[in-house]
Amino acid sequence: MASRQAHHRRQPKLGRPPRHENQRERVISCASELFARHGYENVGLSQLADAVGISKAGLYHYFTTKQEILDEIVLTTLDGLLAHVDAKIGRAATPRERLVAFMTAHAEYFEANYWAFTTMLVGFSGIARPSARTHAVDRRDRYEGVLRTILAEGMERGDFRKVDLATASRGTLSMLNWMARWYKPDGPTRASEVAAAYADLLLNGIGPSDGDAALV
Amino acid sequence: MASRQAHHRRQPKLGRPPRHENQRERVISCASELFARHGYENVGLSQLADAVGISKAGLYHYFTTKQEILDEIVLTTLDGLLAHVDAKIGRAATPRERLVAFMTAHAEYFEANYWAFTTMLVGFSGIARPSARTHAVDRRDRYEGVLRTILAEGMERGDFRKVDLATASRGTLSMLNWMARWYKPDGPTRASEVAAAYADLLLNGIGPSDGDAALV
Repeated sequence: MASRQAHHRRQPKLGRPPRHENQRERVISCASELFARHGYENVGLSQLADAVGISKAGLYHYFTTKQEILDEIVLTTLDGLLAHVDAKIGRAATPRERLVAFMTAHAEYFEANYWAFTTMLVGFSGIARPSARTHAVDRRDRYEGVLRTILAEGMERGDFRKVDLATASRGTLSMLNWMARWYKPDGPTRASEVAAAYADLLLNGIGPSDGDAALV
Repeated sequence: MASRQAHHRRQPKLGRPPRHENQRERVISCASELFARHGYENVGLSQLADAVGISKAGLYHYFTTKQEILDEIVLTTLDGLLAHVDAKIGRAATPRERLVAFMTAHAEYFEANYWAFTTMLVGFSGIARPSARTHAVDRRDRYEGVLRTILAEGMERGDFRKVDLATASRGTLSMLNWMARWYKPDGPTRASEVAAAYADLLLNGIGPSDGDAALV
């Protein structure tokens, strides 16, 4: 685990990364990695306390249940994602630029908060406290709303052709979210470069372009 | 569970669907649904025996471990997916038609084998027996190879513009695979229609088309 944390220290810090400034944040950070690696159901509170380097009683000082920890990871990650993406698209001038900014910002945040993001994607449906659930659904809907607004504005202005908004939005998020299944945080590929290539596929399609078609 | 099975009986049968012709296939079918709904780790053999309606001793007649059952679900589903997609793309004349056929056939198979497919996607990385693991990786690589061949042929012929093969292939499979996260088998949307709309996005992009651009 030490090497992964070292890796994360080299990453740019975006949104609300775990900074280990206090024990509580360290619990969240260790739990994120353990949940992502082994699955929420398979991690016990004793194992988490060991990873943090505190006693189980010490852990109870911050959280009484594992569920509370999962809820906090999901909510904090969604909040941070929304803030980071909002900031990035705010600097883009056209719907086309905003779509690229949305997709690369999503990937940047995913890369910088790899374990928490992966836990969030898996844990979203398992969130338990009614208030946390409402908050999480609200954040997710706002996040999807940001993307739909970009797509709808682009269609209205004529920057994009008219396609089904739900399908285009879902297809975009599917490509981004599935990264959690194959992306290696220590590998050579940058998630944001993959996202930029996906944006090119979505914007321009694979063919035929007019130039290529003329050659046939 | 009865209503889900009734639903599945209404679906067209593709590839190698569970047909309940014998007890062994019934074990696989019940396990697929239980694993997909509750997570592999959270399902016990007693619970599975209850769902099938046999004793735990009866279950041991077919499988000695839960892992064996997971391995079989993963392998059978990958085999069936490959066979179904191969048959469908064999009837398509151009790379463009083959890409649409690949994507819709994937979605058809997913829809008709919803529980096993979902368990396969989650369980792929958890497959344990070395022989089963080799078989699963081989099948997955062959499956991705089918898609890459379609894309590569299209680029060579000039039907598609030249894009990075790995990115295009990964983006395509990401959209298809993420369906397991949101698709409701009893809902009004057909997975194959969503896949056809995704194929349109990938082939034609969202913009600007020449027609729309001329209006700006």
